[in-house]
Amino acid sequence: MAKKVITFGEVMMRLSPPGYSKFAQATSFELAYGGGEANVAISLAYLGMKAAHVTRFPDNALGKAATQFLRKHWLSTEHVFYGGDMLGKYFLEKGAVHRSSEVIYEREGSSFSLIAPGMVDWEAVLKDADWFHWTGITPAISEGAAMCCLEGIKTANRMGIKVSGDINSRKNMWKFGKSMQEVMPELVQNCDVVISSSRGIREIFGLGKAGDKFRTLAEQLMYTFPRIEKVVGKTRKSISASHQQIHGKMWDGEKYVKTKKLNITHVIDRVGTGDAFAAGLIYGLLHYGDVEALKFASAACALKHTVPGDANMVSLENVLSLMQGDTSGAIRR
Amino acid sequence: MAKKVITFGEVMMRLSPPGYSKFAQATSFELAYGGGEANVAISLAYLGMKAAHVTRFPDNALGKAATQFLRKHWLSTEHVFYGGDMLGKYFLEKGAVHRSSEVIYEREGSSFSLIAPGMVDWEAVLKDADWFHWTGITPAISEGAAMCCLEGIKTANRMGIKVSGDINSRKNMWKFGKSMQEVMPELVQNCDVVISSSRGIREIFGLGKAGDKFRTLAEQLMYTFPRIEKVVGKTRKSISASHQQIHGKMWDGEKYVKTKKLNITHVIDRVGTGDAFAAGLIYGLLHYGDVEALKFASAACALKHTVPGDANMVSLENVLSLMQGDTSGAIRR
Amino acid sequence: MAKKVITFGEVMMRLSPPGYSKFAQATSFELAYGGGEANVAISLAYLGMKAAHVTRFPDNALGKAATQFLRKHWLSTEHVFYGGDMLGKYFLEKGAVHRSSEVIYEREGSSFSLIAPGMVDWEAVLKDADWFHWTGITPAISEGAAMCCLEGIKTANRMGIKVSGDINSRKNMWKFGKSMQEVMPELVQNCDVVISSSRGIREIFGLGKAGDKFRTLAEQLMYTFPRIEKVVGKTRKSISASHQQIHGKMWDGEKYVKTKKLNITHVIDRVGTGDAFAAGLIYGLLHYGDVEALKFASAACALKHTVPGDANMVSLENVLSLMQGDTSGAIRR
Amino acid sequence: MAKKVITFGEVMMRLSPPGYSKFAQATSFELAYGGGEANVAISLAYLGMKAAHVTRFPDNALGKAATQFLRKHWLSTEHVFYGGDMLGKYFLEKGAVHRSSEVIYEREGSSFSLIAPGMVDWEAVLKDADWFHWTGITPAISEGAAMCCLEGIKTANRMGIKVSGDINSRKNMWKFGKSMQEVMPELVQNCDVVISSSRGIREIFGLGKAGDKFRTLAEQLMYTFPRIEKVVGKTRKSISASHQQIHGKMWDGEKYVKTKKLNITHVIDRVGTGDAFAAGLIYGLLHYGDVEALKFASAACALKHTVPGDANMVSLENVLSLMQGDTSGAIRR
Amino acid sequence: MAKKVITFGEVMMRLSPPGYSKFAQATSFELAYGGGEANVAISLAYLGMKAAHVTRFPDNALGKAATQFLRKHWLSTEHVFYGGDMLGKYFLEKGAVHRSSEVIYEREGSSFSLIAPGMVDWEAVLKDADWFHWTGITPAISEGAAMCCLEGIKTANRMGIKVSGDINSRKNMWKFGKSMQEVMPELVQNCDVVISSSRGIREIFGLGKAGDKFRTLAEQLMYTFPRIEKVVGKTRKSISASHQQIHGKMWDGEKYVKTKKLNITHVIDRVGTGDAFAAGLIYGLLHYGDVEALKFASAACALKHTVPGDANMVSLENVLSLMQGDTSGAIRR
Amino acid sequence: MAKKVITFGEVMMRLSPPGYSKFAQATSFELAYGGGEANVAISLAYLGMKAAHVTRFPDNALGKAATQFLRKHWLSTEHVFYGGDMLGKYFLEKGAVHRSSEVIYEREGSSFSLIAPGMVDWEAVLKDADWFHWTGITPAISEGAAMCCLEGIKTANRMGIKVSGDINSRKNMWKFGKSMQEVMPELVQNCDVVISSSRGIREIFGLGKAGDKFRTLAEQLMYTFPRIEKVVGKTRKSISASHQQIHGKMWDGEKYVKTKKLNITHVIDRVGTGDAFAAGLIYGLLHYGDVEALKFASAACALKHTVPGDANMVSLENVLSLMQGDTSGAIRR
Repeated sequence: MAKKVITFGEVMMRLSPPGYSKFAQATSFELAYGGGEANVAISLAYLGMKAAHVTRFPDNALGKAATQFLRKHWLSTEHVFYGGDMLGKYFLEKGAVHRSSEVIYEREGSSFSLIAPGMVDWEAVLKDADWFHWTGITPAISEGAAMCCLEGIKTANRMGIKVSGDINSRKNMWKFGKSMQEVMPELVQNCDVVISSSRGIREIFGLGKAGDKFRTLAEQLMYTFPRIEKVVGKTRKSISASHQQIHGKMWDGEKYVKTKKLNITHVIDRVGTGDAFAAGLIYGLLHYGDVEALKFASAACALKHTVPGDANMVSLENVLSLMQGDTSGAIRR
Repeated sequence: MAKKVITFGEVMMRLSPPGYSKFAQATSFELAYGGGEANVAISLAYLGMKAAHVTRFPDNALGKAATQFLRKHWLSTEHVFYGGDMLGKYFLEKGAVHRSSEVIYEREGSSFSLIAPGMVDWEAVLKDADWFHWTGITPAISEGAAMCCLEGIKTANRMGIKVSGDINSRKNMWKFGKSMQEVMPELVQNCDVVISSSRGIREIFGLGKAGDKFRTLAEQLMYTFPRIEKVVGKTRKSISASHQQIHGKMWDGEKYVKTKKLNITHVIDRVGTGDAFAAGLIYGLLHYGDVEALKFASAACALKHTVPGDANMVSLENVLSLMQGDTSGAIRR
Repeated sequence: MAKKVITFGEVMMRLSPPGYSKFAQATSFELAYGGGEANVAISLAYLGMKAAHVTRFPDNALGKAATQFLRKHWLSTEHVFYGGDMLGKYFLEKGAVHRSSEVIYEREGSSFSLIAPGMVDWEAVLKDADWFHWTGITPAISEGAAMCCLEGIKTANRMGIKVSGDINSRKNMWKFGKSMQEVMPELVQNCDVVISSSRGIREIFGLGKAGDKFRTLAEQLMYTFPRIEKVVGKTRKSISASHQQIHGKMWDGEKYVKTKKLNITHVIDRVGTGDAFAAGLIYGLLHYGDVEALKFASAACALKHTVPGDANMVSLENVLSLMQGDTSGAIRR
Repeated sequence: MAKKVITFGEVMMRLSPPGYSKFAQATSFELAYGGGEANVAISLAYLGMKAAHVTRFPDNALGKAATQFLRKHWLSTEHVFYGGDMLGKYFLEKGAVHRSSEVIYEREGSSFSLIAPGMVDWEAVLKDADWFHWTGITPAISEGAAMCCLEGIKTANRMGIKVSGDINSRKNMWKFGKSMQEVMPELVQNCDVVISSSRGIREIFGLGKAGDKFRTLAEQLMYTFPRIEKVVGKTRKSISASHQQIHGKMWDGEKYVKTKKLNITHVIDRVGTGDAFAAGLIYGLLHYGDVEALKFASAACALKHTVPGDANMVSLENVLSLMQGDTSGAIRR
Repeated sequence: MAKKVITFGEVMMRLSPPGYSKFAQATSFELAYGGGEANVAISLAYLGMKAAHVTRFPDNALGKAATQFLRKHWLSTEHVFYGGDMLGKYFLEKGAVHRSSEVIYEREGSSFSLIAPGMVDWEAVLKDADWFHWTGITPAISEGAAMCCLEGIKTANRMGIKVSGDINSRKNMWKFGKSMQEVMPELVQNCDVVISSSRGIREIFGLGKAGDKFRTLAEQLMYTFPRIEKVVGKTRKSISASHQQIHGKMWDGEKYVKTKKLNITHVIDRVGTGDAFAAGLIYGLLHYGDVEALKFASAACALKHTVPGDANMVSLENVLSLMQGDTSGAIRR
Repeated sequence: MAKKVITFGEVMMRLSPPGYSKFAQATSFELAYGGGEANVAISLAYLGMKAAHVTRFPDNALGKAATQFLRKHWLSTEHVFYGGDMLGKYFLEKGAVHRSSEVIYEREGSSFSLIAPGMVDWEAVLKDADWFHWTGITPAISEGAAMCCLEGIKTANRMGIKVSGDINSRKNMWKFGKSMQEVMPELVQNCDVVISSSRGIREIFGLGKAGDKFRTLAEQLMYTFPRIEKVVGKTRKSISASHQQIHGKMWDGEKYVKTKKLNITHVIDRVGTGDAFAAGLIYGLLHYGDVEALKFASAACALKHTVPGDANMVSLENVLSLMQGDTSGAIRR
């Protein structure tokens, strides 16, 4: 029986000029939808899990179309609800080599940002679930979103459902009056698995000091929040916009694991690769041992760099093959 | 020497599914820009006039791209200014026959809506201008927009520049706390030329009564606001989304003129046809007598139905040819 | 609580040259999916009903993509199952005016055609359903498909679920060894509502004689198969590929109803209009009286002519508006 | 055994903005190739005849691509030859309703225009041919083209091959120093079938007088040039760019025939419809009696209005069906 | 005088999602046609040879369009014949880096697979030919295809025409009842040139043993089938789906030749590269000495990786330039 | 206050098959406009300078569209003038790896080539300008173009405006009767900054000898033409069409500067990279010291390789970031 994950967060309309055109050159936009948590859910659905995403859209044809995107990519959308007037948006101009991709957000005042505690019936949502996943993007959006997220985490705790949080700290997103330092600890202390960069741990929780390695910081985080079972990170080297290297790392309180570097020499779409890593990690932890889980996460992350759009739509077979070392990309007939 | 028109109002990003696809079917959007007043300016520029549009965009690549659209279509953009965070937007699903086109606006909180009195140096803007045009969309957007618009109208009055206002009343747009009945009279009383439907005159100014004809209502409007020299309207019969009939009508205080019905049997793009009419009227009044001006306006309006996008990009020669009765659309080599 | 419909039949990949290009000109195909019964289900889902479609696809990425199309357009796909090697296909070259649209089928040996009795757990499928719909296309595909369809009808009968059958006779489809005259009666006799042309009733059941009107034929059909409560038809006049006229007609054993002619002057997509009629009829019969139901069906059918693809994706509001006589297609903002 | 036609003339690259976009809106061009005579050849090839086109292209990848277009559409290209530097071009902006299509030519100095007498081995070209067709466009291009055309006509005369000429007079094309009045008579006097408008006969050959009907002018033309067996014309009424009416007319020295008006209510592509008429006429005269030939020509012409591109790509079956009165455009499955 | 090659085999419709989209993301397919042997013929035609392909298509608009593709790309199609109902198809999802391209075939029951001995008049086909080429794909399709292929080979032998066979063994294609071990020897023993991988020689002919080098295996193959003059292979290293390395190798009974490794660092289209190698080899053997021929084949193969579609459309000049060591890809103006 | 540059030269319509398609595969062309000098102007406008381009277009919709392209990309077009009949054109087939991009020009007889001395009012054009830039393409086009260019240079000299010339020698372009050796010296001797390759200096001015380094040649050039203050070059290593390396070099009479090699591993568009270098140099010299200017030029050049189209549309911030060593291309949000 397939395991089930619940994710919670904003889903934005993603508008991007075709190919490598700059915004100034576009006369059309390619249309997709994405958001850190929904990306995780879709990735897991393509790997064979059941996945439902909880979010809020405007009650119009655009909100419906966003829901339809999630349904198409195998999510259960019974917990999508409607209200407000605006679908969050982001515009993506794809870069190459030394030219950075540029992202412009328009999410202020979106339907999701106006979410309020009590709007989600978390017990109904989490019924039968095996895992709940959230990211640090959500509490940054609005106080309501932060509070809703906390409700979800606490309900999951109560129902004995594992919780993972991907810190994903973006300081300049926090505009609603509270800082991430104020809000995040309460969310993180109720997590079983935390995904974070070293910088995230230092900046948000004030742990460690400059120069401390991931392992040290992870140890301190687990010491601070004893519920946490694993702290997981991903190292990315951006050789250029077109060439990335990544590897995963994990501290589980006892051993430190690091995966082999994967070399993505021809990036197709850089967005959502962290979400693919998180999804791979969740899948791995639910189906394999820790070391394999981290390898699986890294392979999933690497593959996402080659899939257009926000979400990783590769199959379990694809990830397993790369995880087992086949980097050849040879044609499958 | 070409005459010069100044227009003022919001320009939105226009996103539409290709062809006749529904929102639910779109995987890309065609991208254009439009807004009632800028549409008028572009139309006039294609007819050979000088035209500058005054508006406000966010100071990012999207705001720049909107400006570039205006520049491309011959407008002077020296009076475009930047601030705020969001470009107003509208989504257009194109209908056919019995299926209506559907428009979804996302303009709340846009850069333009946050405009405030004093932001525009109207004397500089209107220098050398022959005409100033505004529409009833602008004061509906926000109190700031309404006040800025009034500043512009008064400055034009002071500088001896003709002012036209296209009432274009959409009751459900007025959300900022004042009603159109409160705001519009002060704007309209300073106009030389007013474009309005009968309904507009009745609803906004409380003139006439149900069943009163356009001429009667126009007379009352001119009586109420003595500065007005002409009241102009357009009758549209929507046989279907794909087949429209239009004709123009004008009251100048002494004579009532009506143009022959034009039959647009295969609509390509219905949006902006009223703006094409207004532009045609302005061009006509600046270059011909009243009767010819109204014919010119009607012909321009009819032609716009065949041009994709918001603005009328037909040439003077095209309009003259139709105005003179050539409806054949025969190939020009 | 929304009512629920179950449909059963093949879903084909639909490949069509862009715009009005001929097959000889195509360098790409637009991709959609369609099939008479699934088209009905999707139409009903857009109207607000619950709808599940039962079908069989190859167990590969193409079969998955077909399922994803159904999910996207709101269907429940829990009863889609997988096997066989080929997705049925049809190629559509869109005509205009005097040039006919051309359809080439490639469905022989498709996954669906290899369906066999016992493969569908009809009791599970029909649980909670309010209506079961099939068409005459399905039994024409293969003996297995015919037998499966009969199983479904009989189970529905047993469970007290209304059954509608759209005769849709295409003689040249019947290639598996039995004729439609042999197979159809057993299927039709268990139906509550039958949709058919006059020709269908004459040719398949040998009723009436040349020149007999629909009402006479419908009477005879109901006399022959007493379970039938209503016989419903649609008259189409094909003025050209670009201009169609339709109206509905219904005999319920006591009264004959006919709707006003609807004039579709600018056809966007002719395919699936009969399915839109059937869907409209089912919706109408479940929510309104007979006369209104027929009007609703006709309006839905007319609107489908303006929607690209096989399925009718218009809203309840759209259909109601046309049904109530608003043919103007005026923009909705 | 299929009959064989030879055609001679320039083939241009055809560049057109997508859909109904204006030149000012285009960011891409749809690419096709066309020219009056090659259009005739392609039409005839789709009807089942053998067809070879004689022309000259630059010896580069663009000239090769033009040749490949002709090959793809069934022409024999063994008599295409290479030289010069420029492929003739035309830009087409597609109009609708009252908006005319606009054509801009760039053919001066093209490879074809530099053709010189002696370059074509007409005896080899015309071996096994049943028909030779030219149009008045060719002699207008350059003196060399005019002389080459005359060579072809005379060789055909000598070899007993029927010759048709489509006058297609466009006064403003004649720029090389001779007028059409000087050049055309020698070409036309060697034709067996002449296609012309009334205006063409009057203006080029100075026959008849204002107000003379087609039949009268045709009689005078045949009197002047006794080799001519038939003079054929086509009346077009351009109700709008989107709606055309046509019918054919023919004088054979004894009887005057006129076909029923065909009503093309939704024009897809107006270009090349005269060439489709000419091709239909040639096919008809080679396979049917005169009256049927004219009906066939008219039906072919009407159908071309619905085919994108310059050439008529409909099948024999399509033309026969319309010629026999089926205007329904009903789907063929 | 250009030399002439004849090829024989199935041509499939190739349908691929645009860019790097996954099947699940496609809303259109790019359309091309390809098949191992036709790819060789097209490559040779672009290099300047005469080339005719023998195949069988359904007698409908899709079969015609496939023929038109071959004609467009310079093939003689006089030996294409029609029958059966289905055009073979393959769907290609293009991968990148670690993500494999995925191919789904639908060729069972295709028009070509139903080919039977006696259907091809091989003497007529091979008249004036200098070379006949087949691949191991063809006999795998059906017994009829295998027998037809053998007919062709034997006729070529009898007429003194060189025969090359590209083994191209795909075990899982053989489904018609005979194994490749049974069928291939009779085909291969009549060849003059054999292209194969080491694995192909071992698996099909049971020669050599694990670990044997290409040269040893080639020697044994030539010993077993004395007609063979050369055994040629290609070594591919798939660094990733986006980066391939290839070199050629040849044994002619006396000397072993190997070309320098070519490094294709940015793969555009991986499909058909083996066919480009075969075509390069045939061209090379017909025009140069052995060593040059192998270099030419390798250069052609490398270039194909940069051409979209199945067939290599580069010019002789392109191949010669790379063969002579210019790997710079510098712009040619 | 932004500084102002004036450029002078032909702007061509650029037509290219989508993606990596070959000319033989194209059914559409992507449309842009470009020319060495206008590319420089656009680059500088995106960097924040004022820029006006002087050129001549045909007085038709195509000439207008070309002007609109320049306006859109921020140029002042008040000095564009109209006449002649043909817009210069180039066709670009984009290569990859070992496959070269292919360019076909059609510019003979273009509107620009017919330019004549006296047509440009250089004093008006150069009013308020800080810099005048020309390239060696312009004098190669026609004697009129060469003379006009000289007029511009001399006027700039007289008005105290800096002049830069990019030698850009393409021998095979010079067809109007004079050689580049005759024409160029007079143009170059009036320049303040010269951009040239070593080969350019040797071939055009007969300076130095084979094997002489750039610095030596630059010294001799400055000795010969004492007005020149700096000679600047760019070394390009074309590892493949997809991978380029570049660095800049400069001699100012006293010191020789060379920048670090930049490695463009994934080329998006190779055209216009030299123009981006020139623009970067002009910007740099106007705003920074020499060394920084050369670094800025190199960074701008490298970035252009990733921008589709002819002109460099990156921002000042992008160039500064790369110039300061950030090659990571990390996403900007």
